[in-house]
Amino acid sequence: MCELLGMSANVPTDIVFSFTGLMQRGGGSGPHRDGWGVGFYEGRGLRLFQDPQASIDSEVARLLTRYPIKSEVVIGHVRQANVGTVCLANTHPFSRELWGRNWCFAHNGQLSDFTPLGSFYRPVGDTDSEAAFCDLLNRVRAAFAEPVAWGRLLPVLVEAASHYRRHGVFNCLLSDGDWLFTCCTSKLAWITRRAPFGPACLRDVDVSVDFGSETTPDDVVTVIATEALTSNERWQCYQPGEWRLWQRGECLATGQL
Amino acid sequence: MCELLGMSANVPTDIVFSFTGLMQRGGGSGPHRDGWGVGFYEGRGLRLFQDPQASIDSEVARLLTRYPIKSEVVIGHVRQANVGTVCLANTHPFSRELWGRNWCFAHNGQLSDFTPLGSFYRPVGDTDSEAAFCDLLNRVRAAFAEPVAWGRLLPVLVEAASHYRRHGVFNCLLSDGDWLFTCCTSKLAWITRRAPFGPACLRDVDVSVDFGSETTPDDVVTVIATEALTSNERWQCYQPGEWRLWQRGECLATGQL
Repeated sequence: MCELLGMSANVPTDIVFSFTGLMQRGGGSGPHRDGWGVGFYEGRGLRLFQDPQASIDSEVARLLTRYPIKSEVVIGHVRQANVGTVCLANTHPFSRELWGRNWCFAHNGQLSDFTPLGSFYRPVGDTDSEAAFCDLLNRVRAAFAEPVAWGRLLPVLVEAASHYRRHGVFNCLLSDGDWLFTCCTSKLAWITRRAPFGPACLRDVDVSVDFGSETTPDDVVTVIATEALTSNERWQCYQPGEWRLWQRGECLATGQL
Repeated sequence: MCELLGMSANVPTDIVFSFTGLMQRGGGSGPHRDGWGVGFYEGRGLRLFQDPQASIDSEVARLLTRYPIKSEVVIGHVRQANVGTVCLANTHPFSRELWGRNWCFAHNGQLSDFTPLGSFYRPVGDTDSEAAFCDLLNRVRAAFAEPVAWGRLLPVLVEAASHYRRHGVFNCLLSDGDWLFTCCTSKLAWITRRAPFGPACLRDVDVSVDFGSETTPDDVVTVIATEALTSNERWQCYQPGEWRLWQRGECLATGQL
């Protein structure tokens, strides 16, 4: 299994605090030693940092804990391999271009007896996760050759996620840089921070932050993680089968697979 | 204009020395302040570092000058913008998946009155370079739905490059992680280092290296750059219109557009 970290915000926000907690789980307080990765959207651009080694040992991960990259959508992952060897090509998040946008995907879970549809997008590595991502993009492309708004896209995403769920555990984060689609079949939690902002303390390492001094009253920042990252805030758990679509920190739509 | 840096080697080799020279040209000894990027292949995986700020000021670029990433194929670029704003989405190198492989591309030059063909691969940003890359991949996909060996692929690449040349300057580096296709319409140089290895001194900054102490007798490493990076070695210049295909440090094929 793996751990996911996502963010959706209405203002470019750095994720150094949450990332510091997550990377402890990559070989420190958690067993996920088989690589890590984070994708940061900056406008339509996607900046992807990945490493097949444990985040706790990673020079690049250390850089990210002191180098604040401001982004409105972030997708992160620390990996404990089950399917696929430990190598860069098997390291989440995965990305592909569709409709002239960068799509980015990370998955927690395992899919068995899963045969991907379509041949346009093909996995580079050999994980079930990347196969599912390619399958999902092939489904979207088959449904819509040209870009559509999220309202029309959503049923295709939900149907695909329902299909993957029948093959195993499918907790995922997916974004095109604008919206963030999240789906839980076993474990995922979220928190939306907005004014009045207060202090927060990480669970995995002795680090705290006062969001009040780093934000403006209009900021809305939602963080999604496999497990709550802080000890003094109330995170909400997704129900098994629950999906949520986030945009600019707010939940646009939610439902059950 | 921009500066290119490519490497093809028969053994995973770090490019810290050459990169140290290149990044000086990103706002130090050179005017290319509008971003930089480097793609490192590790097996089938591609690790892409990009920054829309000058490499000389970039925290990530500094990391790369002290963090040796070993790779058999590298594509790097520092940018001086002519077409497209300065932002992450317009920062080379660009990458796309085709046939289950990561393709990576960087371009030096400017193309005018250029209308891309095909609609599958679409630019995320608004540079002529990314438009040409997408056009090239659409041509390859139109010619071959399934993977082909480089011998069959090469005529498609050469024909595409000949087409772009009619629209302006097209010096480029392109790879699928196995081979490195290089093409020059105005300025590009190369050097192949093999035993006996000797010392090398950068032109742009007072740094030297003794390759003899870092290599084995069987290593073959070719470096391609817009201009010679070292002052004490004999680099060879591409002729205008010359292309070369490299693999594992050796030139597999060469010709004229």
